[in-house]
Amino acid sequence: MSETDAAQLTADLIRCPSVTPTEGGALVLLENLLSDAGFECTRVDRGEVSNLFARWGTKGHDRTFGFNGHTDVVPVGDEAAWSADPFGAEVRDGIMFGRGATDMKSGVAAFAAAAVDFVTNTPPDGAIVLTITGDEEGDAIDGTTALLDYLDSEGEKMSVCLVGEPTCPNEMGEMMKIGRRGSLTAYFKFSGKQGHSAYPHRANNPLPAMARLMDVMSSHTLDEGTEHFDASTLAVVTMDTGNPATNVIPAECKATLNIRYNDTHSGASLTAWMQGLVDAVAADTGITIDMDVKISGESFITPPGPLSELVAAAVYAETGRTPELSTSGGTSDARFVQHHCPVVEFGLVGKTMHQVDENVPVAQIHQLKGIYTRILRDYFA
Amino acid sequence: MSETDAAQLTADLIRCPSVTPTEGGALVLLENLLSDAGFECTRVDRGEVSNLFARWGTKGHDRTFGFNGHTDVVPVGDEAAWSADPFGAEVRDGIMFGRGATDMKSGVAAFAAAAVDFVTNTPPDGAIVLTITGDEEGDAIDGTTALLDYLDSEGEKMSVCLVGEPTCPNEMGEMMKIGRRGSLTAYFKFSGKQGHSAYPHRANNPLPAMARLMDVMSSHTLDEGTEHFDASTLAVVTMDTGNPATNVIPAECKATLNIRYNDTHSGASLTAWMQGLVDAVAADTGITIDMDVKISGESFITPPGPLSELVAAAVYAETGRTPELSTSGGTSDARFVQHHCPVVEFGLVGKTMHQVDENVPVAQIHQLKGIYTRILRDYFA
Ligand SMILES: [Zn+2]
Ligand SMILES: [Zn+2]
Repeated sequence: MSETDAAQLTADLIRCPSVTPTEGGALVLLENLLSDAGFECTRVDRGEVSNLFARWGTKGHDRTFGFNGHTDVVPVGDEAAWSADPFGAEVRDGIMFGRGATDMKSGVAAFAAAAVDFVTNTPPDGAIVLTITGDEEGDAIDGTTALLDYLDSEGEKMSVCLVGEPTCPNEMGEMMKIGRRGSLTAYFKFSGKQGHSAYPHRANNPLPAMARLMDVMSSHTLDEGTEHFDASTLAVVTMDTGNPATNVIPAECKATLNIRYNDTHSGASLTAWMQGLVDAVAADTGITIDMDVKISGESFITPPGPLSELVAAAVYAETGRTPELSTSGGTSDARFVQHHCPVVEFGLVGKTMHQVDENVPVAQIHQLKGIYTRILRDYFA
Repeated sequence: MSETDAAQLTADLIRCPSVTPTEGGALVLLENLLSDAGFECTRVDRGEVSNLFARWGTKGHDRTFGFNGHTDVVPVGDEAAWSADPFGAEVRDGIMFGRGATDMKSGVAAFAAAAVDFVTNTPPDGAIVLTITGDEEGDAIDGTTALLDYLDSEGEKMSVCLVGEPTCPNEMGEMMKIGRRGSLTAYFKFSGKQGHSAYPHRANNPLPAMARLMDVMSSHTLDEGTEHFDASTLAVVTMDTGNPATNVIPAECKATLNIRYNDTHSGASLTAWMQGLVDAVAADTGITIDMDVKISGESFITPPGPLSELVAAAVYAETGRTPELSTSGGTSDARFVQHHCPVVEFGLVGKTMHQVDENVPVAQIHQLKGIYTRILRDYFA
């Protein structure tokens, strides 16, 4: 019975200094391990980024379980503040330290080790595909999207996909992610004409236009929520003028709002809605209103179903916790994978990700491998 | 024929350093001059302020022409920046320099000289009353109001009153004042509860309440104007939050607005109107809204009529200009006098008032005395 040590593999990966976009030896290491276990491996490089595609079993098989993860890591930050070598994988009292210890070399090591042992010990009737990118922490332009483009062009597929990002806020097993709300920030600049407050008709005050627009937008109910999402929310976060003179009408003011939106909307539909209101208020007031919209990420969802039930059952069996099916938190490459197949995310506790002294309990890596192994076993049962 | 030199009198007054609330010898000087000409003089002192009441003719006479003015001056400011002694009354190229040169020792000198010469040369059938205060530039609590209280309690009166403040923006004779719009500034503070912009229901965002209130207030038409006044105006002058974090809902924001109002309104009626809207928005949003209102001055008007016609005709005869009957500009003691009798304001060009190197063309002082003399002659004709 083959037994790949996921903690040792995590340590080996941490020792590869793979700060985005540097490959750092991490993908080479995984490629060797997976090839030895019978995976067909292909390096899918694009731009300055290296990515790894690995498949065990028949190409395009109807029953293909996918894993997705990344080996790139964020920079070390204040190296002097670390109590251990950020690329040393030092273990103290059962805790392994290093950049990527939680985000997410442990996750990649856990699913790679689980996959290798699973196909070696109990070869399934189906296929396993690993998509591992070196560009998740950066612009994410040439990473998972490049791998998905490769799948499409080569007739490769994943029937379902599990992203191994850390998903648990505090305790192992308490949360998985089945989607995300979208998020956008809109910046407004209102330009009128300065003047004396005693003679407003000689000026063109931008403040009433700002008040009107922010009132209309914040009064609007975007939706009542959907089956798996709370209602979308709009928060005006700042309105500023900076005019200290009560006898002066200012020429300019600014406002910013943030929208968290569910699958009722898209960044484009919300931008169009806002632009319509901007145009109406501008026409009504004669104020020039500039709008600049930054879309951080669109909303997406894999509705609760077979995949989330599979993962939740395995998490419960291994940890005794039923994970919450959450759509909270920041963005991840699941936003790309969702266009390809049902996708959920489950990984260990993410508390120290991106921080100085990022670390992971060694036992948690083994537990995560156990969960991933059970998921594979149940999926192919 | 008596001929009092108004320019010499202006210089003598400038040399009295009568920065509010210091009397500085200015009222003593005027009291001596007026007493010598047969005026009954009374010092009406209140608080730390000295004022002068002077009457020629019968007490309470139905035909009593009143003059009002002040001898106190604002501080010198940056004395090093002056090109002349601020209390020296130096004349260069026909221009007299000094604090109070335009505001308004020249005005007081002109009407005192005109009154003295008039009663000496052509004693009228009626009375002339001079109310000269030492507290116009300060809080104005113990100045003209103290003199008016004295009039009331002593059975003294003015049938009409001319305030000798500088009223001409650029050219001698172009403008007189028949009233003022009122002015108030309202300061609003909106207090809610801080939170994360992804979870607005856990916060209480004060910004929509501010947007709503400022929209409602600035959308409202206060009035359409009245016979002698333009429409009242409301200008939101600033709205501020200072929140740099797009993922944070702030706890607090502030707005300020300024209202210039005609005789349709009072500071109290506008405050009540605003408070009603504040209460409604606060009840609707759960945001605490603090409102602080500073009333700079109520509106008042002496409608165009015999007094303004008298003054305008004299100005035209002496300068060739028909003065505009204006209600513009800042506050003056006319706001107190209007409760006692019809009041208008006319004086020389105010350009340098309150500035470094405040100055007045000597010829303008003589011209102003000429106008005041003609007004007296026409009034008693
Ligand atoms: Zn990550
Ligand atoms: Zn003055």
